[in-house]
Amino acid sequence: MALLQLLFLGAIILETSHASFMSTPNQIHLLRPRSGMAGQHVEGINCLSWRLGVETNNVVKWVTIPKQCAGYVGHYMLGQQYRDDSLAVTDVAISYVESLELAGDGKDMWVFDVDETTLSNLPYFAVHGFGSEPYNPTSFNQWVIGGKAPALPASLKLYYKLLSLGVKVAFLTGRTEDQRSATATNLKHVGYYTWHKLILKGSSYSGKTSAFYKSSERGKLVEEGYRIIGNIGDQWSDVLGTNTGNRTFKLPDPMYYIS
Amino acid sequence: MALLQLLFLGAIILETSHASFMSTPNQIHLLRPRSGMAGQHVEGINCLSWRLGVETNNVVKWVTIPKQCAGYVGHYMLGQQYRDDSLAVTDVAISYVESLELAGDGKDMWVFDVDETTLSNLPYFAVHGFGSEPYNPTSFNQWVIGGKAPALPASLKLYYKLLSLGVKVAFLTGRTEDQRSATATNLKHVGYYTWHKLILKGSSYSGKTSAFYKSSERGKLVEEGYRIIGNIGDQWSDVLGTNTGNRTFKLPDPMYYIS
Repeated sequence: MALLQLLFLGAIILETSHASFMSTPNQIHLLRPRSGMAGQHVEGINCLSWRLGVETNNVVKWVTIPKQCAGYVGHYMLGQQYRDDSLAVTDVAISYVESLELAGDGKDMWVFDVDETTLSNLPYFAVHGFGSEPYNPTSFNQWVIGGKAPALPASLKLYYKLLSLGVKVAFLTGRTEDQRSATATNLKHVGYYTWHKLILKGSSYSGKTSAFYKSSERGKLVEEGYRIIGNIGDQWSDVLGTNTGNRTFKLPDPMYYIS
Repeated sequence: MALLQLLFLGAIILETSHASFMSTPNQIHLLRPRSGMAGQHVEGINCLSWRLGVETNNVVKWVTIPKQCAGYVGHYMLGQQYRDDSLAVTDVAISYVESLELAGDGKDMWVFDVDETTLSNLPYFAVHGFGSEPYNPTSFNQWVIGGKAPALPASLKLYYKLLSLGVKVAFLTGRTEDQRSATATNLKHVGYYTWHKLILKGSSYSGKTSAFYKSSERGKLVEEGYRIIGNIGDQWSDVLGTNTGNRTFKLPDPMYYIS
């Protein structure tokens, strides 16, 4: 392997000595830092690679983030990059919806997940290790019932655009029916002042995966005649499965994984 | 939006003043740098966000990388982060295949894409703007026919593991039949010394998308009785569609997009 990597680097050095390369506006130097341009190196694991693995659905079924990456994930979530990454997703979604010729018959629908999509639980996770502590259903339920989650600004921007275009909004969440009132109040309080459906996970789905539950509920929307023109969530289980929608959008979330 | 973002930040500051947060081992400060912890800021576009958008299949059907991101993409591709990101993917793939109980009947198969998966065209793209120049079929064909592409070290590691476990390897590539000999020679030269199938794009697929072509060819493998236990590529069109395989793996590639 080491020999092959040397050959690989050698090939690049040979090629990059060509004049056409040297004249590019942003000259690339061949010194290769230990963790690339973008990283703090943590022994044994590259936290940037781990996060990319999560976001691309390569790293699956994990329970907590790697302990060594708690600091990295915390900085990412509190920093500008998470906000920019989220806005980059919803800006693509807005361009997409603006490009459509909508029927205007009240059947165009957009599906939003709730947690880490419409609402942000970052204030909760900031005091619970950013996903490095095991999920605690009791304290998380207390947080949800408190109804104090801020909106994810990127999703709120998409939401207003959709309303202005006459697209119906459905919230489809793994939150359970007993959290309906707190969820509805929280959504309204932070700017999501109207919606067509707020679908919470009924007891008939207990023990089923989120992917199964959400596919089933989207199927019901389609049976009712809605066209799901878009679907956005922070989990791959929000956007894979059946009746996923004409286009899906995956928001970042390196804090937890839901099947 | 500005008000909401202030409220959002305010909520975090209130929450993060709690003692439980202050005692976390990696203390998070609330100063938020202009482009997060990981980035150089480029006016008008956050290149890290753009790359994440590409890797998560949110940013689609793009022709060239944003001009402003040529330097960023070049540094990424030549730096350690691209290698680490690739290894993180194949290490998950290796853990996955090691966890399987293989039938040992010669029907377990792994599908590899070729370009930016088994072979790296980085020496070519390093002198062609890392995807910022429009695709040039003539010069790229010359490069392919030259047969000088190095192996992607991460994929070579996965390849050896698969061979050691008796898994059949199929290469399924958008390269065309006239490039068969150069491709086979190149593969052997850099360490891929054997394979069960090398499937190149025949003329009957001209004008079809890569996703259609690859789905069709994987379908033929399944009809022949092979079980596609894994499938790896750098494009989403390698791993979406039909007969995708029991598990799929998406390698990084911020240089070009293939439908």
